[in-house]
Amino acid sequence: MDNERIMRRALELACLSYNEWETPVGCVITKDKEIVGEGRNRRETSKNALAHAEIEAINDACRNLGGWRLWQCELFVTLEPCPMCAGAIINSRIIKVYFSAYDKKNGACGSVTNLFEIGFTHQPLLEGGLLEEESSDMLRRFFMDLRTYKANHKALFQNSVDKTL
Amino acid sequence: MDNERIMRRALELACLSYNEWETPVGCVITKDKEIVGEGRNRRETSKNALAHAEIEAINDACRNLGGWRLWQCELFVTLEPCPMCAGAIINSRIIKVYFSAYDKKNGACGSVTNLFEIGFTHQPLLEGGLLEEESSDMLRRFFMDLRTYKANHKALFQNSVDKTL
Repeated sequence: MDNERIMRRALELACLSYNEWETPVGCVITKDKEIVGEGRNRRETSKNALAHAEIEAINDACRNLGGWRLWQCELFVTLEPCPMCAGAIINSRIIKVYFSAYDKKNGACGSVTNLFEIGFTHQPLLEGGLLEEESSDMLRRFFMDLRTYKANHKALFQNSVDKTL
Repeated sequence: MDNERIMRRALELACLSYNEWETPVGCVITKDKEIVGEGRNRRETSKNALAHAEIEAINDACRNLGGWRLWQCELFVTLEPCPMCAGAIINSRIIKVYFSAYDKKNGACGSVTNLFEIGFTHQPLLEGGLLEEESSDMLRRFFMDLRTYKANHKALFQNSVDKTL
């Protein structure tokens, strides 16, 4: 599989999160360009701060490959990893990371800091911006939908309060 | 419970990891100084790069408290958090971190970098060095034991190779 096709699979996974009112982020791990792990953001549904796409994919790949060192594996994710996920990538010895959209507020692969370049024991290679537009568009639409939902929800809430008065 | 007693519980958990040939690190999460989550390093036995003490404790606390935001919770860990764990602490909104021993090679709370001070959205408070000597001693003994074990293992391996020649 080529890199673009793999990232499109990560975007499919992000889309599944979108449909569950989760921030749409998907992740795929490959070895020799074959998929060995997949994950998507489920923080709200699982009620767990750790349930980011990359963490789920690393868990899946460790299970599938039977060890904690993901030697020669590459990780594809639709949003720049946060510090937790960048740290998990370092810990699991992933060799290269591709991400789509940049995360100006919480990105630890260049935006706020770059954890792969400040002297930790393992330093993965990095390529940002692969299918950036597709992922950025999906995230933009999601946050618009969420704002609309919250506005409607607030109105409904207001109505229900008014009825009880 | 006072801070020292809570850290002693984290040291007990570290000791359990020691007995399984895991790097001895234990972690406790409290709310109003009562324990709401516990974890210990199990990376080798679980064959999972994510199975650090802090990650296990955050998982446990999210399960016990029924949400991903660990508001007003404090985390006690026997070794300075790595980038993954420091990131997980930020993501779960823990208010304060106490750690014992410093980790010069992989510490993300002051040693290599300080992820709580470089502009991420949540910035936990930090106190290093609580019962530092107890934890440092345990880690030192562990790595001495591990070196001895590996040296013996190597000798055994050499013997078995010799016998087959």
